[in-house]
Amino acid sequence: MNNKLQLPGACLLYFCLSAGVQPADLAHPFDARQVVDLTHALHEDMPFWPGTAPFVIERLADYDKGYRMHRFFLWENIGTHIDAPAHFIEGGASVNELGLDDLVLPVAVIGVQDKAALEPDYQLSVADVLSWEERNGRIMPGGLVVMNTGWHKKFHDPQAYVNQDEAGVLHFPGFSVAAAQLLVERDVAGIGIDTLSLDPGNDLSFPVHRLMLGAGKFQVENMNNLDDLPVRGAVAVIGVLPVKDGSQAQARIFAFME
Amino acid sequence: MNNKLQLPGACLLYFCLSAGVQPADLAHPFDARQVVDLTHALHEDMPFWPGTAPFVIERLADYDKGYRMHRFFLWENIGTHIDAPAHFIEGGASVNELGLDDLVLPVAVIGVQDKAALEPDYQLSVADVLSWEERNGRIMPGGLVVMNTGWHKKFHDPQAYVNQDEAGVLHFPGFSVAAAQLLVERDVAGIGIDTLSLDPGNDLSFPVHRLMLGAGKFQVENMNNLDDLPVRGAVAVIGVLPVKDGSQAQARIFAFME
Repeated sequence: MNNKLQLPGACLLYFCLSAGVQPADLAHPFDARQVVDLTHALHEDMPFWPGTAPFVIERLADYDKGYRMHRFFLWENIGTHIDAPAHFIEGGASVNELGLDDLVLPVAVIGVQDKAALEPDYQLSVADVLSWEERNGRIMPGGLVVMNTGWHKKFHDPQAYVNQDEAGVLHFPGFSVAAAQLLVERDVAGIGIDTLSLDPGNDLSFPVHRLMLGAGKFQVENMNNLDDLPVRGAVAVIGVLPVKDGSQAQARIFAFME
Repeated sequence: MNNKLQLPGACLLYFCLSAGVQPADLAHPFDARQVVDLTHALHEDMPFWPGTAPFVIERLADYDKGYRMHRFFLWENIGTHIDAPAHFIEGGASVNELGLDDLVLPVAVIGVQDKAALEPDYQLSVADVLSWEERNGRIMPGGLVVMNTGWHKKFHDPQAYVNQDEAGVLHFPGFSVAAAQLLVERDVAGIGIDTLSLDPGNDLSFPVHRLMLGAGKFQVENMNNLDDLPVRGAVAVIGVLPVKDGSQAQARIFAFME
């Protein structure tokens, strides 16, 4: 045989192997026919946690120079964003260390809008979770469990959204520690909410943060458009900025459905 | 018939309608079994456009206070990011105005790594595009056409990535105006690259920017992991931060494949 004639084939095989696609298999594969955007726009008048600072966009150049250019100043917790375990847990994963299985995952939505409208300090209960499971099946391991409080509709009105009383206490709904504990037992990947915090506004000791982040889970705060999600069946794609050492970071979040 | 007995059914129907899922239909539906992350991590040592500023993450609190907290300072053009038409075009769409059809779209990858390795000022030619089409079929309307220059592998080395000579001229590959014009004729939604700019580094008059953004297209710069994409068949989900009035903004970008 002529070795020289064999070379092109070998080279071609090598080329095919070296140029081969090497993507990661999805733990939660999905078929996408429809989409919902779960993100609030970032702007200077958006609500923010009291004691932190508003989002700033500064114009550095405009069309008289041929192009428009800005720079952004933002705390890592403003707007729709992710809390990584490193937010509260020394040695915990930073936002850039969240795995693809955490960022592409099925979503369960537990709606408590009616209760939260009557009681701004409402805490998601174990009974709320169990009632959801009776109707929709068991919470899936590795998924994202989202509490729809209805608060996302107040985001345009920072005073109503933050809802701070004269004594300085915040009033918005959140997860109870017992419900969060049940979700840890269900082995969720994370939890989310459409308010400033997973903990109810009137509890600044952050027990749900400590529990969830301590269990290696992540959190999503200030979610939008939760009314447009099915109670189950959607898959969230969490486009969190991969900030090295970031304990939190802004995210563009889409939910896809068949 | 008893009208009262009919009411629960009507109420139930109303509830189903009002609580119904109302997501948007995808112009480019897809099935996701695998994923590639096309994003560079954001950190203080990453390359940036000469004359702009590095990414800054400032620590405001740490675990001695019970939690870690940062704030970010960043120009809108650092890292993996989107150029919206408003970057160069007065009255053009800002990053928060890009439609879901622009942010979820099929990707074509044109590889010129070998040519760019030999010639850092290499410009993607019309022949490169036509040759790709001969092998892979016509460029799809409404898609994203990405130029893989191999530069994403230099991102860890800012000096090599920016590649500025002693006279201050930048040397990295880009699109030729003629190739960009052909892609406008193909009615792509946008173009992307794994360098600092769609225009080659040695052309600061930005003719490709003016052409593409002027045609209402968007651009992606500083893309990562392009070697892991197939030449066609992937769908990109572009998680750009929806910054109001932003002419550019950072994005987390995933590509999904069957």
